[in-house]
Amino acid sequence: MYNPFEFDLVVRNGIIVTASDEFACDIGIKDGVIVVLGQSLPASPDCELIDAEGGYITPGGIDSHVHINQLGSLGARSSDTWTTGTRGAISGGTTTVIAFAVQAKGKKIMPAVEEYYQTAKGACHCDYSFHSIITDPTENLVKNEIPKMVEFGITSVKIYMTYPLLKLSDKEILDILCGARQAGVTTMVHAENADMIDWMTNNLLERGLVEPWHHGTSRPPLIESEATNRAIALAEVIDAPMLIVHVSSKEATAHIRKAQTRGLPIYAETCPHYALLTADKMHAPGFEGAKCVCAPPVRSDPLDKESIWDGLGNGTFTVFSSDHAPYNYYDAEGKQRGMTNNPTKNPRGNFKNTPNGIPGICTRTPLLWSEGVLKGRISRQKFVELNSTNAAKLYGMYPKKGTIQPGSDADLVIWRTSKSRRPYTITQDKLHHAADYTPFEGMEIEDWPRTVLLRGKIAYDGETNEVLAPAGSGEFIKRGFSTLPGPRGKSDAWINDWNPHEM
Amino acid sequence: MYNPFEFDLVVRNGIIVTASDEFACDIGIKDGVIVVLGQSLPASPDCELIDAEGGYITPGGIDSHVHINQLGSLGARSSDTWTTGTRGAISGGTTTVIAFAVQAKGKKIMPAVEEYYQTAKGACHCDYSFHSIITDPTENLVKNEIPKMVEFGITSVKIYMTYPLLKLSDKEILDILCGARQAGVTTMVHAENADMIDWMTNNLLERGLVEPWHHGTSRPPLIESEATNRAIALAEVIDAPMLIVHVSSKEATAHIRKAQTRGLPIYAETCPHYALLTADKMHAPGFEGAKCVCAPPVRSDPLDKESIWDGLGNGTFTVFSSDHAPYNYYDAEGKQRGMTNNPTKNPRGNFKNTPNGIPGICTRTPLLWSEGVLKGRISRQKFVELNSTNAAKLYGMYPKKGTIQPGSDADLVIWRTSKSRRPYTITQDKLHHAADYTPFEGMEIEDWPRTVLLRGKIAYDGETNEVLAPAGSGEFIKRGFSTLPGPRGKSDAWINDWNPHEM
Amino acid sequence: MYNPFEFDLVVRNGIIVTASDEFACDIGIKDGVIVVLGQSLPASPDCELIDAEGGYITPGGIDSHVHINQLGSLGARSSDTWTTGTRGAISGGTTTVIAFAVQAKGKKIMPAVEEYYQTAKGACHCDYSFHSIITDPTENLVKNEIPKMVEFGITSVKIYMTYPLLKLSDKEILDILCGARQAGVTTMVHAENADMIDWMTNNLLERGLVEPWHHGTSRPPLIESEATNRAIALAEVIDAPMLIVHVSSKEATAHIRKAQTRGLPIYAETCPHYALLTADKMHAPGFEGAKCVCAPPVRSDPLDKESIWDGLGNGTFTVFSSDHAPYNYYDAEGKQRGMTNNPTKNPRGNFKNTPNGIPGICTRTPLLWSEGVLKGRISRQKFVELNSTNAAKLYGMYPKKGTIQPGSDADLVIWRTSKSRRPYTITQDKLHHAADYTPFEGMEIEDWPRTVLLRGKIAYDGETNEVLAPAGSGEFIKRGFSTLPGPRGKSDAWINDWNPHEM
Amino acid sequence: MYNPFEFDLVVRNGIIVTASDEFACDIGIKDGVIVVLGQSLPASPDCELIDAEGGYITPGGIDSHVHINQLGSLGARSSDTWTTGTRGAISGGTTTVIAFAVQAKGKKIMPAVEEYYQTAKGACHCDYSFHSIITDPTENLVKNEIPKMVEFGITSVKIYMTYPLLKLSDKEILDILCGARQAGVTTMVHAENADMIDWMTNNLLERGLVEPWHHGTSRPPLIESEATNRAIALAEVIDAPMLIVHVSSKEATAHIRKAQTRGLPIYAETCPHYALLTADKMHAPGFEGAKCVCAPPVRSDPLDKESIWDGLGNGTFTVFSSDHAPYNYYDAEGKQRGMTNNPTKNPRGNFKNTPNGIPGICTRTPLLWSEGVLKGRISRQKFVELNSTNAAKLYGMYPKKGTIQPGSDADLVIWRTSKSRRPYTITQDKLHHAADYTPFEGMEIEDWPRTVLLRGKIAYDGETNEVLAPAGSGEFIKRGFSTLPGPRGKSDAWINDWNPHEM
Repeated sequence: MYNPFEFDLVVRNGIIVTASDEFACDIGIKDGVIVVLGQSLPASPDCELIDAEGGYITPGGIDSHVHINQLGSLGARSSDTWTTGTRGAISGGTTTVIAFAVQAKGKKIMPAVEEYYQTAKGACHCDYSFHSIITDPTENLVKNEIPKMVEFGITSVKIYMTYPLLKLSDKEILDILCGARQAGVTTMVHAENADMIDWMTNNLLERGLVEPWHHGTSRPPLIESEATNRAIALAEVIDAPMLIVHVSSKEATAHIRKAQTRGLPIYAETCPHYALLTADKMHAPGFEGAKCVCAPPVRSDPLDKESIWDGLGNGTFTVFSSDHAPYNYYDAEGKQRGMTNNPTKNPRGNFKNTPNGIPGICTRTPLLWSEGVLKGRISRQKFVELNSTNAAKLYGMYPKKGTIQPGSDADLVIWRTSKSRRPYTITQDKLHHAADYTPFEGMEIEDWPRTVLLRGKIAYDGETNEVLAPAGSGEFIKRGFSTLPGPRGKSDAWINDWNPHEM
Repeated sequence: MYNPFEFDLVVRNGIIVTASDEFACDIGIKDGVIVVLGQSLPASPDCELIDAEGGYITPGGIDSHVHINQLGSLGARSSDTWTTGTRGAISGGTTTVIAFAVQAKGKKIMPAVEEYYQTAKGACHCDYSFHSIITDPTENLVKNEIPKMVEFGITSVKIYMTYPLLKLSDKEILDILCGARQAGVTTMVHAENADMIDWMTNNLLERGLVEPWHHGTSRPPLIESEATNRAIALAEVIDAPMLIVHVSSKEATAHIRKAQTRGLPIYAETCPHYALLTADKMHAPGFEGAKCVCAPPVRSDPLDKESIWDGLGNGTFTVFSSDHAPYNYYDAEGKQRGMTNNPTKNPRGNFKNTPNGIPGICTRTPLLWSEGVLKGRISRQKFVELNSTNAAKLYGMYPKKGTIQPGSDADLVIWRTSKSRRPYTITQDKLHHAADYTPFEGMEIEDWPRTVLLRGKIAYDGETNEVLAPAGSGEFIKRGFSTLPGPRGKSDAWINDWNPHEM
Repeated sequence: MYNPFEFDLVVRNGIIVTASDEFACDIGIKDGVIVVLGQSLPASPDCELIDAEGGYITPGGIDSHVHINQLGSLGARSSDTWTTGTRGAISGGTTTVIAFAVQAKGKKIMPAVEEYYQTAKGACHCDYSFHSIITDPTENLVKNEIPKMVEFGITSVKIYMTYPLLKLSDKEILDILCGARQAGVTTMVHAENADMIDWMTNNLLERGLVEPWHHGTSRPPLIESEATNRAIALAEVIDAPMLIVHVSSKEATAHIRKAQTRGLPIYAETCPHYALLTADKMHAPGFEGAKCVCAPPVRSDPLDKESIWDGLGNGTFTVFSSDHAPYNYYDAEGKQRGMTNNPTKNPRGNFKNTPNGIPGICTRTPLLWSEGVLKGRISRQKFVELNSTNAAKLYGMYPKKGTIQPGSDADLVIWRTSKSRRPYTITQDKLHHAADYTPFEGMEIEDWPRTVLLRGKIAYDGETNEVLAPAGSGEFIKRGFSTLPGPRGKSDAWINDWNPHEM
Repeated sequence: MYNPFEFDLVVRNGIIVTASDEFACDIGIKDGVIVVLGQSLPASPDCELIDAEGGYITPGGIDSHVHINQLGSLGARSSDTWTTGTRGAISGGTTTVIAFAVQAKGKKIMPAVEEYYQTAKGACHCDYSFHSIITDPTENLVKNEIPKMVEFGITSVKIYMTYPLLKLSDKEILDILCGARQAGVTTMVHAENADMIDWMTNNLLERGLVEPWHHGTSRPPLIESEATNRAIALAEVIDAPMLIVHVSSKEATAHIRKAQTRGLPIYAETCPHYALLTADKMHAPGFEGAKCVCAPPVRSDPLDKESIWDGLGNGTFTVFSSDHAPYNYYDAEGKQRGMTNNPTKNPRGNFKNTPNGIPGICTRTPLLWSEGVLKGRISRQKFVELNSTNAAKLYGMYPKKGTIQPGSDADLVIWRTSKSRRPYTITQDKLHHAADYTPFEGMEIEDWPRTVLLRGKIAYDGETNEVLAPAGSGEFIKRGFSTLPGPRGKSDAWINDWNPHEM
């Protein structure tokens, strides 16, 4: 019989927060796994103890949208390696990241998965997995490779409606959605209308309107809104679950909300920058605006941010991820490669050459805790749901990840109490990523994680700002199927002889 | 130090379901309270054991809208006493009910509360509490009695926009919302437009259109929709949280959804009959239609039911309650008093004399489990949220009630597994309430609770259909404040010098 | 046989504009009526000629919402008599006004109509009619007096949802709508929620927030929006046509648009001040803000004005009227009676004592022409529709009024061409009303009518700013039934034995 | 001076109906043009007289969407020549048609225009013009050929979002919209998502689901709705006016309505079959269902038809056209070519081989008059607007066409009065087109035009059902610019150096 005295670690005196609950009790941990939740748990002499001092304990964060060691669509490589990226993650309370393995056009997906897997293996400070980015949905890929991918532990694909090297036609999207549904896979979509962006960009360039903020001019909310509506329609044709990534505007949010109101399995993600930054950032003097160039762009209308927060609070958004896509502001030679390849010719730079993406892996969880929970915009339960639980469920890592309960990994973030809380100013020098700036520089928040545990071991100490988990501590997570609602089964006749997973 | 061997009861081999989680582990219970959740919990020899045999275990149901021992608005007394009503409740997996204490016009509220409290005390098979129905919001009531009510443990009021003896003006509603907000109290609203109902009813009666189904004619969805929009507007003026009770139509649901989309603290309730019954029921031969007369009426458009299920799935509805309002079909003398006081004069009866309300306290939880979860319309987590957790949170009983975690009352419902499940036909003779019929007569569902525990004791045995908890087992629950989101704090100037609870 | 040479007057060289058409031709007029439209009409030697010099000719304006010689709800009498009010009207291109005859509570309506009729008779510079304001809808009024009113030539009633002396309950509104539908009468509604206004006003007064701009605080858009939705619902119950008067906000506009989208016979009116003024006006120094106090208040959000202009362009609004409700800024003794009855006690005045209403009868048509047509916001056809045609149709004066065609009254406004146009600054000293200020003081517009004809006679000369039509020129217009779409005939059973006009 | 006695024709005793007005007077006509409207017009002895006998006179119909002598997208040639098509048109009260000149991929547009022009010249029974169908928007076409097209008198282009030989990418649509805006041209869009249709069609074919009604299965409302939303978004990017052709569903209608609510210059067309036919038609026994195959398909949900009628009444729809696209049911050899090329192999036919399109040029106007006006769904003014005036305005033929006023062509339809009206059963044998069936076979309507005049001459006699205007009577209409609202001028920076027509 089980002996409750044989814990490796007991965390005492915390208030456990899950996506629905909140209760004071101790956590008994053995072999990296939570085995018992109980009041006043006994501990044997050699059992380690952590005193949470009355602070909230939330499940380790899951950042389900990060780009690591990946070639961006404009040819720049992300500035974070698996080691630096996951080091940043763990320092900000994120214990699991899901990055991307990209299929090259004309190539197969599984070799790409293997390759990415090999680069990550042994290098990570936190647990990790991959989504596959599909750029070439051949019949073979849809029928044969997706099931192999699932076997490997990858149960989600990401597709793009824009970027020349990545974008898919509506037909290709339908093929993928159909294959994904049959295999039980969730499809993530970057929803912006490629042709509109190209048309606007060309128009701006012809007229010499190249400053960083014209990145925003070239991608107004309408462009995101159209593609979001179209993506949802494509999903509805197939009755396939879909997550719209990095939603930035009230119009796109409204399309998603409407689909959810009708009961469609449409999920959505938003990011710290859409909730907290504004287009003003792109108007910073000189090239500085380039530090805030991402796609979709941060918006100028305050109603957009209001709708993002409303959507975080009312369930429109399923996950809150960083979309960490770090490209250095200064390159190896000190040139502002983010801005231009030829500063003489383009002294103002050119938004078209600026890689789309900003770093955010370190700051995601503290920003949501501070700006969301501590400022009263969302409940602690909603924080856990957005920061951990829903990602674990949607991406098939639940209940190993995403919650605090017997049987789950002991990935924990311990927060300070209202009395011990410390105001914190975000500055690049404190962050553990390898990117050379943060778009949140100078922002003052209410607190930062006190202690982060990865599978029962202290991985980050907030008192000293030290990452204690060595590179290699992170394990690959072989993911299963989504446990959030899937196809409604109201599929029309043309797909009624399918046999998808748990239809 | 705590000794884990001293459980009174260990429930083994179940899968615990909460509003966000699901995990297999044992439950260690002492003094009626859950003290430990853990895998393979040890048990001392005298510890009682229950084997859940792999079945799901959900928190005891909370039926937050039942009328017990109450005089209906048409003068009929509800057919259930505290004993029979709570006996019905516990037999259907409901371990806590919230009934109503009604203020009479011209009287104070606290004496009514006391009186209701005395009738319930010692008579109940499950735990119980009250909402206050306010019918006369004097300044004294708003300022002095509501705080006293809170002190007594009643933190919610219900108000009516219809029924001659109950209805309040918009101004009275504003007064109550203001007082309620200041006291931290949640306001529940019956939203139908009184004048429209009167106008239509008079018109129908003048023309001799008195059959049971004209109850539905007299209260079309428009009437509910208008009042729902108005109630939400009144709440928005005060920035006060509000729950719209017993929502029946797609139009009312849409108003609520829209308010939630905007981030307002508007909550909503629906009931089994709106999800499962249709207006056809009121067209049954003879007087039978009167068995399905309730307000708002059950609807005829299938899109209404679809919107109710969509709303249960997507979070529009906060709680699923029975609105148990039982009035016997045959009275003591065997006359169909539900239909008419003078059968000679009105051989067809008259819908205006039919008490508005139907029994449902026994069947609520099994219907949501069977028609919702087992038919794939909602997840098990959503079931728990709607059946227990949200009611506990909104009405200030959390975490004592509404969840399964260390520190909570051991109110548990153990379900059968897919293998041991038993189809069940609802018939009046099996039910434990005192009402003389069920509107769900003959309906076939997938299962019924196997075992119900009230604070660690077996209270209902599904194998024998026996209620084991004696009358008097139930305790009064002194409720605290809501822990769901309250006022947004975006209140305009006119209330900025208030000092409401946790504003 | 008709001899075309016997015109009294031929207007040559104009471009006639109707609500759908635009064409160059001459207008042959006899006995005040247009008898022929044709190219190069012949004229006998004694026929008068007017050369429009290529300018547009629009139908004489109809201002279907003016308060003349009426006691306001706060006890102040409107500063314009029939003579001064209609003098202002004709000077601004309005050839017909519809003012109000008010029923006093406890009194009948027809005596009020007679009384108002007598005060107007012989005193007017332009044609005139009345709407009845119903404040006491007894059964006798609904059944007997409304038909008498129709016989008298009054086919519209106005009702209020606010103001202590005027407001009706929902039931009273249903009674009126029912009687109105049966009699073929259109119902106009002032839609603001009385209880909300009272509640807010009391709250503001208790806290000493009495400055003019708190009139706006006391009536936020929500209050108009709620009442608008309710009014539409009441109309839908009866399937009766309704016009919402003086719509000011995007929320109310949205409710109306939605009803029209569904095909309901809901009409709407807006006014120059909602299209052109903002809440800033109420923040003017000293008491000046009181000059812009009207109900609903002018709004602060630019999106409100945008939605008003969108609604004028896309057909949401049926008519554009002044809601001329003039109360002098200085009273006879030179006190600022608009602000306070006791300046010593309330040196800042008190918005609650400020009569709700502003003058606008002179400026309505020029503002819509200049700000609407000449600034490209609406077409000339839409101008005619909003300024004349729809009011003539909705209020039963068509085709006598509201258009330019054989058989119609020769009420014409001749405008200058783009070459001869003259910028015009609105100042009180140029206006012909008796009010002592204009809220549009200092506003620069593009033009003012060149010539105004009333039934074939020059009534106003824009070159000299002289009113040439003598008092008494105006005739009472006995109105018939609306020719805009009425009840949809989808009425439910309870009204199917009615026999309303052209159901 | 003009002598009014020199009319060629006077139409007496009619009630003239325009898009806004209605008035009794005579019409004086000379040289095919209306010169005078007046009461009791004099007539010289040799002047022709027509007595309208109190009937309504509406402007000659404009059918702005007909396919004549055109190769369909599946290779079938339309069964009507210019002579037979326009013969059908005039027999149904249509005095002007706008057909299509199609650019072949890789070819220029102007030669196609010339070629179509030559085939039509001298062959038509009514007036005619062309829209250009653009299938290959080269830079040369956009910059140089569109202006030439305008010079030729073609001021509208039609584009397709579906059909392999016709469909354009979003980028191509943007290019065309940009060129069209600069040239003052209106863009018409067939909005269905090509990829979705292909995907669904392939899926159906693979499974042998080939019956006529699976044409409907392959194109559910969602497919139209998505493309409509996208088309509107593309138009909004450019701030260019657009007309969505042949709208069939409530979802597409809602997108259009929403755009109009926001003030965008989005126009819409619907057709008799979407207002009157249902998907049941495609389920007729044998191949008969193929007679009702068109794209988008007629819909099965009654709410779709309701929304079409609501949209006709409330201004959502701008024009009502036939989309006459006649393909014979039996070909020259008597084979049902509409169904299959190989009846042995495909005894059930195959919807994919059925040409998309149905005949409707004869019946359009009588259907709208009878089902719309005489059944009380729309007003006579709305009928004129939808049947004539808006098409004339949008397509630059106004005021020559589309109204009854001095200076306009004397294209007139004289209707019978309520007393002389004759019920009429639509049967193929009465119709003057060359198609071998009508989808409205057997439908009973209230009336058919009594007399049709083309430029002052009787062209069709309803008493004898004879077309009196000889082939060749019809003239080519060189069209000018739209006079309906165009770009809002709120264009963003990227197009502010353009110089489009009347921006």
